[in-house]
Amino acid sequence: MKHYKLPQGFLAAGVSCGIKKNDYDLGLILFKQPYRVIGFFTTNCNVSYSVSLSKKNIKNPVSAILVNSGNANCFSHKEGYRDTEEITKKLAEQLEVGEETVLFASTGIIGKKLMKKNIIKNIPKLIKNLEDNSDKFSKSILTTDTHPKVISKTINFSKKKVTITGVAKGSGMIKPNLATMLAFVLTDADINLGILKKQAKDSVEKSFNAINIDAAESTNDSLFVASSKKVSLSKQEQKKFFIEFQKIMVDLARLIVKDAEGATKFVQLDIRGAKSKKEAKMIAEKISGYILFKCALYGNNPNVGRIVAVLGQAQIKLNEKDLKIKFGSLTKKDVNIIVDLNRGKCNWRIYTCDLSPEYVKINAKYN
Amino acid sequence: MKHYKLPQGFLAAGVSCGIKKNDYDLGLILFKQPYRVIGFFTTNCNVSYSVSLSKKNIKNPVSAILVNSGNANCFSHKEGYRDTEEITKKLAEQLEVGEETVLFASTGIIGKKLMKKNIIKNIPKLIKNLEDNSDKFSKSILTTDTHPKVISKTINFSKKKVTITGVAKGSGMIKPNLATMLAFVLTDADINLGILKKQAKDSVEKSFNAINIDAAESTNDSLFVASSKKVSLSKQEQKKFFIEFQKIMVDLARLIVKDAEGATKFVQLDIRGAKSKKEAKMIAEKISGYILFKCALYGNNPNVGRIVAVLGQAQIKLNEKDLKIKFGSLTKKDVNIIVDLNRGKCNWRIYTCDLSPEYVKINAKYN
Repeated sequence: MKHYKLPQGFLAAGVSCGIKKNDYDLGLILFKQPYRVIGFFTTNCNVSYSVSLSKKNIKNPVSAILVNSGNANCFSHKEGYRDTEEITKKLAEQLEVGEETVLFASTGIIGKKLMKKNIIKNIPKLIKNLEDNSDKFSKSILTTDTHPKVISKTINFSKKKVTITGVAKGSGMIKPNLATMLAFVLTDADINLGILKKQAKDSVEKSFNAINIDAAESTNDSLFVASSKKVSLSKQEQKKFFIEFQKIMVDLARLIVKDAEGATKFVQLDIRGAKSKKEAKMIAEKISGYILFKCALYGNNPNVGRIVAVLGQAQIKLNEKDLKIKFGSLTKKDVNIIVDLNRGKCNWRIYTCDLSPEYVKINAKYN
Repeated sequence: MKHYKLPQGFLAAGVSCGIKKNDYDLGLILFKQPYRVIGFFTTNCNVSYSVSLSKKNIKNPVSAILVNSGNANCFSHKEGYRDTEEITKKLAEQLEVGEETVLFASTGIIGKKLMKKNIIKNIPKLIKNLEDNSDKFSKSILTTDTHPKVISKTINFSKKKVTITGVAKGSGMIKPNLATMLAFVLTDADINLGILKKQAKDSVEKSFNAINIDAAESTNDSLFVASSKKVSLSKQEQKKFFIEFQKIMVDLARLIVKDAEGATKFVQLDIRGAKSKKEAKMIAEKISGYILFKCALYGNNPNVGRIVAVLGQAQIKLNEKDLKIKFGSLTKKDVNIIVDLNRGKCNWRIYTCDLSPEYVKINAKYN
């Protein structure tokens, strides 16, 4: 297994606390001192207790992010939010940080009570296991993912270097806004918070907001971007930094789609010639989320009718003589599809996959 | 096979013209004299040439409805609409009726050119085969349906009787608005057109607009209601007539869901305690169209979390302590599910089904 070192200023850990059977299910990212974190959350209005708590605490400088997998910590019982606070309070005590500086992210089944006691009991072990790489942490956040997803890049400048490490999990319930996943992008580059926020937002648009597995948006999506500000960069260096930063976001998002539940194909769908960016994005989302289009992809079936039908359903009137659809070879694992409306100058790219019988089987037994 | 006699004033036929391999694929309903027809069409904005033509001609009294299966006659080539006109013109000539009095309905694959010549060549045979029952016609309109769908009822009054015969096809691409299907409901009862229209609209709401197989709406949905006005009814008799009329519509709609592609379960989903009828309907549609809910049903898995997630995605904020969800036994073929929001007095019922690996396989190879 490849070893991914974290940027300066961060430690991480992953342990097994019993939510999942014999598997890592509890993770921690520790900030050596409190840093400001940029957060992106699901637009689903029924959110997990973890998201509610993180939305509150992210206003403060952050000391740690606790993560559990195997349970969404959502809609499970009346005391759900209080339990969540209790867990983060216990962690804060043992880390000797303010409880208002701890974030929490959960992923897994909705509606089941989180094993609070197991988590609290394992906090000391979690802290003891902190290390300067993301290896166990990246395992502790997975649900139906078949492998950990980490991308790390060290950029060498003349007299200094900065590292960006991104860790993510997928792999079903994925649609734009912001995709259904957890992701953590850490760096030691010292970037002005406002600039980082703007760049992160732009990168999210082209990465986690540009993937669609099943048009399903979870209650738990969270993306955190944090910098320990150890290495200062010139404007020129920042430019290079952000190119790599965006590349890591896009590559992480692509990794999620490549490991989508049951998927046999990774599809890059380009919408071209739309009247507006909004139209291009909407069309990309509708096509990539359409069950009959995805079934056709699985069957290596370049079914243009499915595209016509779903766009009409979404009240996007097509002009028959302008529409040009180009399917790449559907027998390959990586497929490019171009839908050109020929009525404007706006383009949009989205990453998606097919729908297989295996997806149905995985989600039939998911409980 | 059961034999379904048509109401007075109608004849029907079904033949094989070569669109499908060795199967009935061309149907005709002949009106012994022109009658007014009430039509309901898909709200998809990219419609078939057949729908476009029918929408125009339905303003006139109608002499015949031509139907083909195996091809949607939609988005296939520039001359598509002209070909459609040519076909109906040839039929009109041979029936000795005005071409503006012919309706056309098509169902099948989108984007492939309709075999105009085969259809025209088979018109004489079609006319020769006209009979006073719907048996062959009901076969000629099927696509992936596993059996014909006909419901017929003769109501006996003291000195007269009226017949209502409904013929429909499903079986994928089904969502409310108006569901994706073709249906023909014929009667000999003499009902005022305005009253029949109002009652038909109300019945569509509770039948074809209250079914959801895969949240996919086709380019070809059409429902035609026609009366030959042979038997006049008193107000009291009309009341009884409309009870049966609505029952036939609902039963036809249920038949479509029961024969849904790959479905292993028929689900009656009741939304209760919503704030408004609109909210209840929206919730019913969202849940019944949600891929992860349908996968869970297939797995006999009463996954409440899927309901919470999809409603949140649709920005329907739930109150955790009020929500009550009751799953009937999921191991049965007929399942009742009740979702009670406990926040209002409005209810809505929808008919739906599970999503199976078989659905994916059927649609993977559909071309």
